[in-house]
Amino acid sequence: MKVICSKSNLLKSVNIVSKAVSSKTNLPILECFLIEAMNGMIKITANDMELGIENIVEGKIEEEGTIAVEAKIFSEIIRRLPENDVTIKTSENYQVLITCEKSKFNISGRPGDDFTALPDIEKENYISLSQFALKEIIKQTIFSIADNDNNIIMTGELFEVDHNSFKVVSLDSHRISIRNIELKDDYEPVKMIIPGKTLNDLTKILSGETEDEIRIYFTKNHLLFEFDQTKVVSRIIEGEYFRIDQMLSNDYQTKVHINKRELLNCIERSTLLVREGDKRPIIMNITDGNMQLKMKSVIGTMDEDIMIEKEGKDIAIAFNPKFLIDAIRVIDDEEIDIYMMNAKAPCIIKDEKESYIYLILPVNFNPGM
Amino acid sequence: MKVICSKSNLLKSVNIVSKAVSSKTNLPILECFLIEAMNGMIKITANDMELGIENIVEGKIEEEGTIAVEAKIFSEIIRRLPENDVTIKTSENYQVLITCEKSKFNISGRPGDDFTALPDIEKENYISLSQFALKEIIKQTIFSIADNDNNIIMTGELFEVDHNSFKVVSLDSHRISIRNIELKDDYEPVKMIIPGKTLNDLTKILSGETEDEIRIYFTKNHLLFEFDQTKVVSRIIEGEYFRIDQMLSNDYQTKVHINKRELLNCIERSTLLVREGDKRPIIMNITDGNMQLKMKSVIGTMDEDIMIEKEGKDIAIAFNPKFLIDAIRVIDDEEIDIYMMNAKAPCIIKDEKESYIYLILPVNFNPGM
Repeated sequence: MKVICSKSNLLKSVNIVSKAVSSKTNLPILECFLIEAMNGMIKITANDMELGIENIVEGKIEEEGTIAVEAKIFSEIIRRLPENDVTIKTSENYQVLITCEKSKFNISGRPGDDFTALPDIEKENYISLSQFALKEIIKQTIFSIADNDNNIIMTGELFEVDHNSFKVVSLDSHRISIRNIELKDDYEPVKMIIPGKTLNDLTKILSGETEDEIRIYFTKNHLLFEFDQTKVVSRIIEGEYFRIDQMLSNDYQTKVHINKRELLNCIERSTLLVREGDKRPIIMNITDGNMQLKMKSVIGTMDEDIMIEKEGKDIAIAFNPKFLIDAIRVIDDEEIDIYMMNAKAPCIIKDEKESYIYLILPVNFNPGM
Repeated sequence: MKVICSKSNLLKSVNIVSKAVSSKTNLPILECFLIEAMNGMIKITANDMELGIENIVEGKIEEEGTIAVEAKIFSEIIRRLPENDVTIKTSENYQVLITCEKSKFNISGRPGDDFTALPDIEKENYISLSQFALKEIIKQTIFSIADNDNNIIMTGELFEVDHNSFKVVSLDSHRISIRNIELKDDYEPVKMIIPGKTLNDLTKILSGETEDEIRIYFTKNHLLFEFDQTKVVSRIIEGEYFRIDQMLSNDYQTKVHINKRELLNCIERSTLLVREGDKRPIIMNITDGNMQLKMKSVIGTMDEDIMIEKEGKDIAIAFNPKFLIDAIRVIDDEEIDIYMMNAKAPCIIKDEKESYIYLILPVNFNPGM
């Protein structure tokens, strides 16, 4: 194999594909990139068996072929080369010669055949949306997936398409996050559960531009995200997602309208008094026109008032401050509405159109504090 | 005590003084700031017994007094408060109430008397220079102090003043770094060894502006750096510094004139092949007009040529790449001169005026490589 690509193109490609390189593995091949020069295309691929990413690099093929190279050292060499054309050439025994200007690196590679190819995804069913929209809705929900594997369903997000409506849901045992958006086109109804890790990695390589499109193809077991010169392949989590509709209610006893920034700053300040591992709640005392927030720990106490608009009953209710912060932080609105039933029932933060819905369970507290 | 300061003034002060807060200590008082409101001045002080920093905060004293507060939590609270006036008020049992707009924090303090005051430094002998110059010359030499205490003298830097010349020297067992600058005024000759940690912390709080002055006062055992509204007090390392003049020589067999950026980039690239803890040398083959640089490790090989101007003999010589990088990186000149005697003798990188001199010992290598 002999190919010539610009350093900047190579580096861009390597940075994208790196997200699917396994960092903890006993299989050295999973720590490799596959470089393929075939049928007029130069492709770099990584595959950690959960997630696979493939990117096409612009460049010139002088001799077709394939080679697997250790991803970390290859990335670092490319990163440090001068801004010029880079030649990658293989020789006998899978030696890889990387040349740029007067700089010559020689590293050992592996046969391309050792590399596990990405599964072929049938391009039949898909939905299409902007990279911006997908990146945003992942960011606005991903924080409430469960991070351990006790319940595998909770480690993924539900993607639910119904005609032109697209709903994304994540939940753990304390909260539910939902985003609803409209798609430009109509599709057949479909539900799938996508691993959180896939979505996290995806947000890092999506452009975030509104005019850039992404297509999501799906089969029974796999997903393919196709955008720009990149393909991301992921397995789908098998199983039935939780029935969340029955957990959401439109009833409330108290409705609070509050400035998002003020509330967020106050809750963030309160966490200064909470040492790691310490589970101190923040207590909200909601009365006409005022929300008093209180935190008490071994370090000290905090007490703060925020002006609000209130409908319905007075209430005192306590939350894990982290859960409130996670949800409020990703809301774009300047003013938010919080709906509460009683001190034992979840609160719901949502806008009128329900483009976002955040449900958070309260915690027990000592009202006399 | 009751004082009112703007959040921004308080935060600036806290950020400066924090550098002298002990992070590893069994004495809780060393993790504290002392806040003093006395004689019309509000001062914040930290003292880890090696280094002390004091800063004057602009503000209004409503009631004089002193209090010691846990530095970390105090800093974090100030950082997160709204941009407005902050009131700090002590009450019985050394409780500290911090109020800003509608936010109220209450934390426990300690009696100010528990705090070890900074030593009084007699302001008799001093030198004066710009903060820019001091910051630069520390940055350009500090990397070659020794980081272990086997030889306490090596953990500090020599400051040597002789009339209007100011020399700064650091060395470990592999290299020497020297910077010479001219002072505006004339001073009595003096030598002192200053702890590296003091200098490192100092560079973080110096403004780096050429028009901002700093005065360095010295007594037998202590130094006082005075600048802006800040005082930094440090002990001096006792003992006699190494005689470095006899290690430096103006003789050479080979002189190389080379582009600094090209050389630095090449050496940095070579280190990609060196895993941590692995001591691989970079080999320079110097011939007429050309420097060939080679690195070989278990990961692979690198080979690169750089155009040079050469005087004197051809030479093959090897170095620890890190030592070359440390020195070359801090040189501002675009072209540098390297002087060599033979493959066993140190090389010297210096400019004509000797405003900087970097001496680096070579390492043994296998010339047949």
